[in-house]
Amino acid sequence: MKLLEDRIRRDGIVREGGVLKVDSFINHQMDIPLFREMAREWKRLFAGKPINKVLTIEASGIGIAAIVASEWNVPVVFAKKAMSINLDYDNYETQIQSFTHKKIYNVIVSKKFLTASDHILIIDDFLANGCALMGLLELAKEAGATVEGIGIAVEKGFQPGGELIRARGIQLESLAIVESMDAATGEIVFRPQPHHH
Amino acid sequence: MKLLEDRIRRDGIVREGGVLKVDSFINHQMDIPLFREMAREWKRLFAGKPINKVLTIEASGIGIAAIVASEWNVPVVFAKKAMSINLDYDNYETQIQSFTHKKIYNVIVSKKFLTASDHILIIDDFLANGCALMGLLELAKEAGATVEGIGIAVEKGFQPGGELIRARGIQLESLAIVESMDAATGEIVFRPQPHHH
Repeated sequence: MKLLEDRIRRDGIVREGGVLKVDSFINHQMDIPLFREMAREWKRLFAGKPINKVLTIEASGIGIAAIVASEWNVPVVFAKKAMSINLDYDNYETQIQSFTHKKIYNVIVSKKFLTASDHILIIDDFLANGCALMGLLELAKEAGATVEGIGIAVEKGFQPGGELIRARGIQLESLAIVESMDAATGEIVFRPQPHHH
Repeated sequence: MKLLEDRIRRDGIVREGGVLKVDSFINHQMDIPLFREMAREWKRLFAGKPINKVLTIEASGIGIAAIVASEWNVPVVFAKKAMSINLDYDNYETQIQSFTHKKIYNVIVSKKFLTASDHILIIDDFLANGCALMGLLELAKEAGATVEGIGIAVEKGFQPGGELIRARGIQLESLAIVESMDAATGEIVFRPQPHHH
């Protein structure tokens, strides 16, 4: 998506170690008008899919997921990273490893809110190693829900997550795929995606 | 707001110890069309205020905040509950106590995204003791930002948070204020708010 690629080139900050900071418009401060344009692009890319729910994971995916769900007029369910004492019913549960935070999370979703009758669109802000997405796919599988597709804002094409997901035959639409980036010059190269606007 | 009160009466679950579970439509599964109606009501209640940014705190406030920000066409900034190793710049920082989770959080917001030129609307899903809100007000004060108002989905009127905030002269609009609730019968009594729709 050219709008997002241009924004990443302008406001993204490349750091050593493959770190791309987009927290001025995606995951600390959230540019909601930009999210609306992203939601419309996903609506086009997933046209015809019988999506009745958006699934994401706390915390930074929630804002994008809410705007996407508003475009489809469906609810969002977000998987939680820790057991709350308010959650006294049965959950689907799995574990994911966070490379950023260097720890393993328990991730849960209530059995009441993810079921075999759901046709879900999974939304998240970043895809790198794919650990978070694999966790969400596991929760969907436990629930028997149908995964209609996955929408990612920024994929790191030089890390294995995207290839792992695509190898499973799931329609994955990353609005910007970073092929390479250079912390010294700040240059970012995106993978061409001819069917994207 | 009658729409929200009716929904809480229908789908809210009252538990012993003053616990009200609204996780089927507010804070685990999020009813985005309902959030849009809530956002429109806040737009009416805060009409004329020069709001340029929505401030909330992760995680469950983010969804409502995103839909509210979409109504105003402004960005959201969400305060984070833990230091991420990706956050390498200067932050405003304070601490809040969570009664639900029985611990103290560090709460941070980047100095880049909350400044003296901001006129913010604070949005959160719940107000009980007011600890989270006090933390957000402290961050806004450190930044020198102007707090134009606070929008809360569900206030527990029998806990002190609402009174503490109103005593500071801030316009606080809680769309539903629970005066009392009965875990045995499930009955919920709301505070009348004549100027609300």
